[in-house]
Amino acid sequence: MSPPLISGVSRRTMLSVLGALPLFSGMLIKPPAASAQTASSGTSLPSWNEGATKQSILDFVAAVTREGSPDFVPPAERIATFDNDGTLWVEHPMYTQLAFALDRVKTLAPQHPDWKDMQPFKAALEGDMKTLAGSGEHGLLELVMATHAGMTANEFQNIVVDWIATARHPRFKRLYTELAYLPMLELLAYLRANAFKTFIVSGGGIEFMRPWTERVYGVPPEQVVGSSIKTTFQMRDGRPELFRTAELNFIDDNVGKPVGINAYIGRRPIAAFGNSDGDLEMLQWTTIADGRRFGLIVHHTDGEREYAYDRDTSFGRLDKALDAASINKWTVVDMKNDWKRIFSFQ
Amino acid sequence: MSPPLISGVSRRTMLSVLGALPLFSGMLIKPPAASAQTASSGTSLPSWNEGATKQSILDFVAAVTREGSPDFVPPAERIATFDNDGTLWVEHPMYTQLAFALDRVKTLAPQHPDWKDMQPFKAALEGDMKTLAGSGEHGLLELVMATHAGMTANEFQNIVVDWIATARHPRFKRLYTELAYLPMLELLAYLRANAFKTFIVSGGGIEFMRPWTERVYGVPPEQVVGSSIKTTFQMRDGRPELFRTAELNFIDDNVGKPVGINAYIGRRPIAAFGNSDGDLEMLQWTTIADGRRFGLIVHHTDGEREYAYDRDTSFGRLDKALDAASINKWTVVDMKNDWKRIFSFQ
Repeated sequence: MSPPLISGVSRRTMLSVLGALPLFSGMLIKPPAASAQTASSGTSLPSWNEGATKQSILDFVAAVTREGSPDFVPPAERIATFDNDGTLWVEHPMYTQLAFALDRVKTLAPQHPDWKDMQPFKAALEGDMKTLAGSGEHGLLELVMATHAGMTANEFQNIVVDWIATARHPRFKRLYTELAYLPMLELLAYLRANAFKTFIVSGGGIEFMRPWTERVYGVPPEQVVGSSIKTTFQMRDGRPELFRTAELNFIDDNVGKPVGINAYIGRRPIAAFGNSDGDLEMLQWTTIADGRRFGLIVHHTDGEREYAYDRDTSFGRLDKALDAASINKWTVVDMKNDWKRIFSFQ
Repeated sequence: MSPPLISGVSRRTMLSVLGALPLFSGMLIKPPAASAQTASSGTSLPSWNEGATKQSILDFVAAVTREGSPDFVPPAERIATFDNDGTLWVEHPMYTQLAFALDRVKTLAPQHPDWKDMQPFKAALEGDMKTLAGSGEHGLLELVMATHAGMTANEFQNIVVDWIATARHPRFKRLYTELAYLPMLELLAYLRANAFKTFIVSGGGIEFMRPWTERVYGVPPEQVVGSSIKTTFQMRDGRPELFRTAELNFIDDNVGKPVGINAYIGRRPIAAFGNSDGDLEMLQWTTIADGRRFGLIVHHTDGEREYAYDRDTSFGRLDKALDAASINKWTVVDMKNDWKRIFSFQ
């Protein structure tokens, strides 16, 4: 369903570049309201089919929330971390943030007549993904810095808000924020109803996500961890301003995820949710530790309703982490069979 | 009362070094329980004397929490940021984290016989603060890296916890965590009772603070922003580990404070609390903006009960920020006259 559009570029390279970015929006999906349902209630996750996958979630939550249980965890320590691309929303045929960057190049092109003949901008303007991939990490970084830096943090936020309120996914013709997975929205709400604090820990740009995560996922900006470029503070005409500079700050992917969790959250999660090799180290850090722990991988097995991919793809490759799942007894969601509905509009 | 012990070294230099550090503990002061008291209740801040200072706090909280008020701010956006050293606890005769570093040098000395003849360790072991200051930023950095890096994050946390549970302040002979200012503990609790989310934004080491801020201030680890060294992730014998490396990551002081607030919190605070020039930019970023805002500076004016210092000191210099306070109409706490009690043990 989803040919690797930028096949010469690794996920890490892509993210080390997209990481530099942030996003935003105006959207339609509301997360289910947090309820007082107890962990043992089988009605908490209506879009999940009954079975071992759903049961593993219910069992874990019951164990850590029941006072007197040997696995009991006090509410303050109930930290759950979620990857974003491919775990909470669609990442095919390309990361949403890359679509944003390409759109920004088109929007900015009239101010940069030289881009028509200059790579990687020429390829971006022509939608020539093969040449774009050929430009490698350096080319993608140029693309990102041209579209994500050189403005204030506030200006960038407004650009993201405007884009995400209007841009549509090429296959589903829906706003990107409508492509959040309904079962995962239910899961976020279910965990919060059981006093978990839910965080996003994404390879994507932190300021690309923060403007819309509260509305879409119920996750406030201060609970979003992501990749970033450096910002600097200046007083300009007596007004304080934060400027986004063309310098990478932090790549929140692979080994960066546990580092980011430690830096931003300062507690070790007891549950982590991902879908790709970029989440391997976060799942290891979360689950290979004392006490009851939970790891879950969303396996994209539904080419009809969404996409089917794992070991051989440019966006969201799931290879080492799939092997590690069976070794470490992580729950693997079979999207086709475990999810009754995928999107709220279906 | 407090001669500049390390007078040749600026606050920024000191913090760029101490920033590399983190702390912890086992302590006695409990923050007052959050109550449902309304903003207009004059009984909310019992250790504050009646007067313009206290009234400015009550007025601000009343204005932003009253529904229908033109200044109303929704709970999710009620972000308040607090400096730590000199704002929430004592910073004289030296930053607590420097006392920690000097103690660590003494503890580790038997494993490093060469330190007896090697600066800056020799000076640290002999308590020769003048020579220590003379070793400059490079010397202090050596001291920090020797005491704060080269171990796992978990090992460091345990070291901090042990130290802060036993080390005592040279003048007050109390645990450092007992030297939290009671009026500020009341203020933290009062803001939280009015649906504010309270954050620490300190030049000190983030991992030096996180182990004890929840117990002492009611501020959980994920709401602590501070300076840091880099950590790396590794699987070692099949166990995931985070290692603290001898490389600076981020200095959360001066211009670093708004940058850190943007990176970690992702929202602009509506209230900020500090005591020194290191807090100037945080106060500017918070208050020079649209909507009702609040800035407060703790002015150390009480040499009898605590310390008296402002423009001429090594730790917590208050000079530019004191001038800026009158220009920007920030509240200045006159510690001697505005605070009925300073510590809970007095």
